[in-house]
Amino acid sequence: MTITDLRINGDRLKGTLETMATIGATPGGGVQRLALSDEDKRARDLFVKWLEELHLEITVDEMGSIFGKRAGKRNDLPPVMSGSHIDSQPKGGRFDGILGVMGPLEVLRTLHENSIDTERPIVIVDWTNEEGSRFAPAMVASGVWAGTLDRDWVYQRTDINGNKFVDELERIGYRGKAAANKWPVHAYYEYHIEQGPILQQEGKIIGAPKGILCLHWYDIYLEGEANQVGPTPMEGRHDALCAAAEMILKVNHLPQKMGGNMVATVGEIQNGPNSRNIIPDKVHFTVDIRSWDDDHALRGWDDLKADFKSIAARRGCPMRIEETWRVAHAPFAENLVRRVLDTAQELGYPSLHMVSGAGHDASYMNQIAPTSMIFVPSIDGRSHVEVENTRWEDCEAGANVLLHCILKSANEISG
Amino acid sequence: MTITDLRINGDRLKGTLETMATIGATPGGGVQRLALSDEDKRARDLFVKWLEELHLEITVDEMGSIFGKRAGKRNDLPPVMSGSHIDSQPKGGRFDGILGVMGPLEVLRTLHENSIDTERPIVIVDWTNEEGSRFAPAMVASGVWAGTLDRDWVYQRTDINGNKFVDELERIGYRGKAAANKWPVHAYYEYHIEQGPILQQEGKIIGAPKGILCLHWYDIYLEGEANQVGPTPMEGRHDALCAAAEMILKVNHLPQKMGGNMVATVGEIQNGPNSRNIIPDKVHFTVDIRSWDDDHALRGWDDLKADFKSIAARRGCPMRIEETWRVAHAPFAENLVRRVLDTAQELGYPSLHMVSGAGHDASYMNQIAPTSMIFVPSIDGRSHVEVENTRWEDCEAGANVLLHCILKSANEISG
Repeated sequence: MTITDLRINGDRLKGTLETMATIGATPGGGVQRLALSDEDKRARDLFVKWLEELHLEITVDEMGSIFGKRAGKRNDLPPVMSGSHIDSQPKGGRFDGILGVMGPLEVLRTLHENSIDTERPIVIVDWTNEEGSRFAPAMVASGVWAGTLDRDWVYQRTDINGNKFVDELERIGYRGKAAANKWPVHAYYEYHIEQGPILQQEGKIIGAPKGILCLHWYDIYLEGEANQVGPTPMEGRHDALCAAAEMILKVNHLPQKMGGNMVATVGEIQNGPNSRNIIPDKVHFTVDIRSWDDDHALRGWDDLKADFKSIAARRGCPMRIEETWRVAHAPFAENLVRRVLDTAQELGYPSLHMVSGAGHDASYMNQIAPTSMIFVPSIDGRSHVEVENTRWEDCEAGANVLLHCILKSANEISG
Repeated sequence: MTITDLRINGDRLKGTLETMATIGATPGGGVQRLALSDEDKRARDLFVKWLEELHLEITVDEMGSIFGKRAGKRNDLPPVMSGSHIDSQPKGGRFDGILGVMGPLEVLRTLHENSIDTERPIVIVDWTNEEGSRFAPAMVASGVWAGTLDRDWVYQRTDINGNKFVDELERIGYRGKAAANKWPVHAYYEYHIEQGPILQQEGKIIGAPKGILCLHWYDIYLEGEANQVGPTPMEGRHDALCAAAEMILKVNHLPQKMGGNMVATVGEIQNGPNSRNIIPDKVHFTVDIRSWDDDHALRGWDDLKADFKSIAARRGCPMRIEETWRVAHAPFAENLVRRVLDTAQELGYPSLHMVSGAGHDASYMNQIAPTSMIFVPSIDGRSHVEVENTRWEDCEAGANVLLHCILKSANEISG
């Protein structure tokens, strides 16, 4: 067998994904494996056991990220790296994140059983808390590792019950000793479901994103005046929920108003005191804006802010805005994107050059190393939900593309 | 001293209100004494102790309502009755409800210490769960007692943690043996804070509502399609929160659109999955419509429903509507309303003929007995909030009006 004929074991990949899907399985067919929860710990323990079976050099860093290194012939050369995350959304799906960890695991198993040595080492990684749904923001471990986020700031982030990130990391036994600090990486590949409808609509199996959209998160806090609804005339009310409703519609309309490439969403709202016969006086909601064009997104935000201010003033509802998080758009390494497309073609899979609307750890990795991603179709574009699904043959196809991209990069001596 | 010179003890009334305000006191200066909570139980125990000190005949009915009967000279005649509720809103105020229980308690103490006998018996009452904020709907105990609501239906109502009304009633030891079943009542007076700004604006101390607005409660459930926000184009989204935002603004605009007497409010909203990077797919919100004109409110609701249906259809968000609760407007007994106004004048308090926007147990009592209410001003119209406040001298004034209204009714032989 020549190396170009090598293929991963689709049945084994399916088996590992199905096993992982039992950890935090929800009645609705999804998984709930929140970062640093007991379920996260159980999945990590299993992942580490599987890494040990391949005799990898295992490191856990101070952010809890788990690295498994397979030696190459030339261990002086920077490794090829691939990974994603084990944590999930609340009531999330069985593919988001975990496919990008089980995929490279399957690649390493294939190399192991075929006794294939590569020039460069290969490192598989599980990044802690990619989702950010328990501890905001998202992608914190790759952010710290890449040197963009501050470790101690992340340590102090709290979940909705006031638990600190660092305490929960300690509690599940994954506060490692290794510094969360980047090292030279020759190439980083992240394998992931698309989480959108484009590949299915276009009839393609492999997506090669040219990069990731910028991502802006904002938090809006409104105050009104609470009162018993019956005896309080409509005139003179300061209803914070009505102000928020106007703002939510402005967010929804923004992409159409601005034109060009943009999505804008309010996903979260808290209303207080949230009693049916009291005028709302405390509302918090979030704004998420994404675009391939960072400046376009900023102009959109400026436009929104002006609208928000005039709505808040007209309704007499004092407003506080927190500009929570901004990640610039991440254009991936063109030669690696090209490699994904070429490899797909060599293997006979129809492919598409596209963009990634979702944020990934690849955003931060892209800041320190040549990076690209491999997408496979999400059925009906559904993701972050229990019905999230991807065909097993597509999971297998993506892993084969990953295998050969890794092999090509890992056998490059120069660069 | 002639009976017309009799006055309640304002300092003692202040003392009892201040003592009650310690039970469930909140850091913000209000109280949280939710129906059938431990705080409700402690307040009830204290109330019962105070009733015992007056040698009243105490009865607890199967809804947990507490009655204290002071014998008259003619115990064959239907009694005069007065009361309100001990339970509060979450983070509610120190006057709503409790003033209408401590007020008649102070009246009975005044009669007791002056050894004044009346022709008819006088009954003081604490109605269970007037607020409805822990167990919806509101005013359930007076509703069952008056024969309008079904006891077993109320028993099965659950709070947000799934606790049943009947189990919580049992738990706090106030599931009494007496049937919750109306008996003949000669006159029912309910003393309450206004909960609106009108009396203060008009510079009056006593309000005599001609009745209570009708009250319609609706629950709207919307479904959308959850997806990761980044990769999901704006076109084709089914965002349940955007549909709700449009509907909330329609509710807010309804009174202006319909004209005439009406208030309409959305006080409560739940959004799911409520994650900042997932398109909302499950929204529930409430609608509260009130008017002096039942038909006007129904026409308003019909208008809203048509708007809701077209919004839901346009956004592709299936909608379910629950018509949760309707209480018709309650025009009080004209002679008793007149008596409140006349008594205020005799005592030298400026008064106002008005309406009640808030629902009260008096709504149900009005269905079975001649009923009226006595209002005192809410400072700045604030109610259902921790800063809810009423001047002590106004509390005293209202209790004096209540005293003489009760005396007049309790000494009527005929009727």
